[in-house]
Amino acid sequence: MVFSSALIENAVNEFAKLPGIGKKTALRLVLHLLKQETVQVQQFGEAIARMRQQIRFCKVCHNVSDEEICGVCSSHSRQRQVVCLVESIRDVMAIENTQQFNGLYHVLGGIISPIDGVGPEQLNIQSLVERVKNEGVTEVIMALSPTIEGDTTIYYLSKKLREYPVKITTIARGIAFGGELEYADEMTLARSISNRLPLDSYVKP
Amino acid sequence: MVFSSALIENAVNEFAKLPGIGKKTALRLVLHLLKQETVQVQQFGEAIARMRQQIRFCKVCHNVSDEEICGVCSSHSRQRQVVCLVESIRDVMAIENTQQFNGLYHVLGGIISPIDGVGPEQLNIQSLVERVKNEGVTEVIMALSPTIEGDTTIYYLSKKLREYPVKITTIARGIAFGGELEYADEMTLARSISNRLPLDSYVKP
Repeated sequence: MVFSSALIENAVNEFAKLPGIGKKTALRLVLHLLKQETVQVQQFGEAIARMRQQIRFCKVCHNVSDEEICGVCSSHSRQRQVVCLVESIRDVMAIENTQQFNGLYHVLGGIISPIDGVGPEQLNIQSLVERVKNEGVTEVIMALSPTIEGDTTIYYLSKKLREYPVKITTIARGIAFGGELEYADEMTLARSISNRLPLDSYVKP
Repeated sequence: MVFSSALIENAVNEFAKLPGIGKKTALRLVLHLLKQETVQVQQFGEAIARMRQQIRFCKVCHNVSDEEICGVCSSHSRQRQVVCLVESIRDVMAIENTQQFNGLYHVLGGIISPIDGVGPEQLNIQSLVERVKNEGVTEVIMALSPTIEGDTTIYYLSKKLREYPVKITTIARGIAFGGELEYADEMTLARSISNRLPLDSYVKP
């Protein structure tokens, strides 16, 4: 692509580094920004740079935070004995959006995946063990994706936590709401039958 | 959406202002940037802000430029008597990418569109007339989109330029390469037949 301005070429190249954004989309975005007020575009650039520069990770649960301890961990209205283990901060957001969970979180920062070279030592596992050991955690909910890597991580962690008096649960696997039974894979369908629930738990909100 | 950090919320909102980017995509982009090095993200933010701040528009043709006069207008190897009129800087890029045009450009900055409240006075028409009058332009190629607004603009400009000894042409309308004849609209098909070309012009590169 021929650009008549190095400034534009530079901006397009930076946008095109983002996932799912090719050169053409990048150019469209840059031309859109060109039409905006200088102040607005500056705000945009600064918001991004500031976000990366000033963001912190909660010392307790490793979630993103503006403070040393995140809002969830420092809240007094949360059940402190229940910890929901998730892979990434995106999962925290997803669960928080349901407004159904009132415990704390622990962000692993990935899952055990030998193919991608991710072993237990790269994940926030030691700090989870410390929390279980010292902070009176009674239940750890493993909210990891139902993949081979997820299951491996759950298995590894359950062995690590075995020596402490803590209940380990996983989120329910089954047919999603709105999902069609006949298109569900065999594994999910089989599990959803063997883990069938009494009707009153279904009716509950 | 619940964010655990105002910094992230801010960055997501800024991304979501871009065309074609919703909240979910914005979040994905922000989380991607969170994983990058601080320096890289700062580079990204700065490239965008700098682009908007320092960009200039060529005094002659109104194309974007890093200098007062753009690279095309200041080039000595270009045919200075032929001016290609386009709607936006994006069209300049598209034509430059074909590497088939060796004249100069003139960016209108829009087309006449009463519905959108764009009249001739908002466009770079006066400077085009000046160029035709004073700079020995022998041909103006109207490279506008074949829409009602485009045709209106062409009609308006051809009346404006009538008093000067300049040839006015439009880019050829017809069936696009790779296009299927049977799916072409009637207008295009009719025009492509009435404006049929001798075979030797087809074989030329």
